[in-house]
Amino acid sequence: MSVTTSAPHSEQPGRIMSGEMAEQPAVLRRILEQGAPRIREVARLIAAKKPRFVLLTARGTSDNAALYAKYLLEIQLGLPCGLASMSTTTAYGAKPDLADVLVITVSQSGGSPDLVASTRAARDAGALTLAVTNNPDSPLAAVSEHHIDILAGPERALPATKTYTASLLALYLLVEGLRDGDGAPAAALPDLAAQLLSRQGEIKQLAARYRFAERMVITSRGYGYPTAKEAALKLMETSYIPALSYSGADLLHGPLAMVDNISPVIAVVTDGKGGEALQPVLDRLRGRGADLVVIGPRAQVEQASAGFDLPTSGVPEELQPILEIIPLQLLAYEVTIARGQDPDAPRALAKVTETH
Amino acid sequence: MSVTTSAPHSEQPGRIMSGEMAEQPAVLRRILEQGAPRIREVARLIAAKKPRFVLLTARGTSDNAALYAKYLLEIQLGLPCGLASMSTTTAYGAKPDLADVLVITVSQSGGSPDLVASTRAARDAGALTLAVTNNPDSPLAAVSEHHIDILAGPERALPATKTYTASLLALYLLVEGLRDGDGAPAAALPDLAAQLLSRQGEIKQLAARYRFAERMVITSRGYGYPTAKEAALKLMETSYIPALSYSGADLLHGPLAMVDNISPVIAVVTDGKGGEALQPVLDRLRGRGADLVVIGPRAQVEQASAGFDLPTSGVPEELQPILEIIPLQLLAYEVTIARGQDPDAPRALAKVTETH
Repeated sequence: MSVTTSAPHSEQPGRIMSGEMAEQPAVLRRILEQGAPRIREVARLIAAKKPRFVLLTARGTSDNAALYAKYLLEIQLGLPCGLASMSTTTAYGAKPDLADVLVITVSQSGGSPDLVASTRAARDAGALTLAVTNNPDSPLAAVSEHHIDILAGPERALPATKTYTASLLALYLLVEGLRDGDGAPAAALPDLAAQLLSRQGEIKQLAARYRFAERMVITSRGYGYPTAKEAALKLMETSYIPALSYSGADLLHGPLAMVDNISPVIAVVTDGKGGEALQPVLDRLRGRGADLVVIGPRAQVEQASAGFDLPTSGVPEELQPILEIIPLQLLAYEVTIARGQDPDAPRALAKVTETH
Repeated sequence: MSVTTSAPHSEQPGRIMSGEMAEQPAVLRRILEQGAPRIREVARLIAAKKPRFVLLTARGTSDNAALYAKYLLEIQLGLPCGLASMSTTTAYGAKPDLADVLVITVSQSGGSPDLVASTRAARDAGALTLAVTNNPDSPLAAVSEHHIDILAGPERALPATKTYTASLLALYLLVEGLRDGDGAPAAALPDLAAQLLSRQGEIKQLAARYRFAERMVITSRGYGYPTAKEAALKLMETSYIPALSYSGADLLHGPLAMVDNISPVIAVVTDGKGGEALQPVLDRLRGRGADLVVIGPRAQVEQASAGFDLPTSGVPEELQPILEIIPLQLLAYEVTIARGQDPDAPRALAKVTETH
């Protein structure tokens, strides 16, 4: 995403972001139908090299997709992973020994020069390199040994939405390929995503409670944690509300001081072990009288101040992140509209255009 | 740090935190004089095992110390590193293959059950384990193959201060030991830390500009990035101002929309490659008319709205984080006092005590 050129102006506030969110069921279907065979082939080539360690490199929204992949790789494959601190190679010229290391770089555009430079450096240092992008003709795809195309089509809105869910599904299928799984549960995603999008009215109601919020806290654990981080980023990019994301365990270590009845909390509760591990945190928040909104299974929503129930029946926990971000994208959109701003025209961009 | 018992009440607001910040020169001196030989011996034993990867495990303030160690290990030793997502083992029971992996767990108290459980699991999975704590009698020290004592003495304030700088110095000396360096530049730290503490009046003036702030953004790159994260945590824990920390590169990817003349920015500018890599971000912020406060070398402070100049002459960039957090700890303290709150009595704690 470029921040030096002017955003395309929509006639209606949020029209571009709205259109791209609506494309998500079709994009997910395209990956399952057209992208999956190629992803499986890439997985086969990578598995043959038996990597011992995975480093994930990304920025912004893609960094949250990379974090999702980290959970998948560690839990499903027992592969130790790290998120790269890019400046160690690009600014400091670190020369790590990357034999037996798989470096996965996630980037919607595939054009960011520092990602290209750090991926090239990784390849020179002996790493097996894989780029996951929305542009097979990008410099990042060219510099990487392997490439996965997320097939999301052009993304024009500044807040990335369809490329996020597309990256998640591509990464899920990659890990399924690495573990010789068939990825069959993913077949339900396009229809479920469409159902979620059809419930925008519920989200509009939920958005009313954040219209005057001065800050928000978003929490989760395990597979839901990347969703919490991505939801915070979406809310900030569109509405400029300072949204702080914490894993439930970290929240208890200090920032809980910020949570009271004037700091609303959104909890992303997966239906599975991550959601179970979050229960003590939810109990504490309820005990403190926090304004707690839950995105998760109906039983969890019923114990909160409000929420949005997710259909999780038959959807394994590791696939739920692809669904649970959708109501949160809609929430960022609706909160922004409710505050009289335009999700398609972030302020930063306008300011830069003014001052150059 | 326990959050289930009541904080010790100070007669004067902030007395406990203030006293512990003031101990930092003495703690740093104690590590250099009494702790260093043992750290060097631990480094020798670890180096003999030739680890290929490092996983760092921590929470809260210690997580920021772990991130500092990640930069040191990657840049100085070329060792690929990752920060552990603890729930993958504690909630999901992931069984990674950790042969050739060094697992470093950083924890002030050494008592957190999930850190103990994940370190035990790592050791069972073949990892070489090292605990860095402020309590040699802790369960974490017991479960780890190696232990480094940060010698900070009891820490009673909820916002950790002296254990943060102590952890940083211990980790620096560990990495020096691993690379067969002598750590000589660290000898200057105790006196420099005392000089910084004597300039509290300057910080008090700086605090006035944040008394009514509704949010803050803190940015840096490279070695200064853990400082930005730790400063944000300190500000939130004491003053409850939502403080968002971003690496300079990530800031340009979206959250810049939040920065305008009502969102003040603090930039931690190291004197070295990280500071150089941050310059384009500083130019953008100045171009947008942001309220920019710089913690860094005098020449950088002079180009900002205000700041605090750090003595960096003769202090290598990798040691600057041990100094640059001190004015930011003082800032969190002074902002909290200016807002009529007590840095020793965080709200979360009081609330929990009320509801139990």
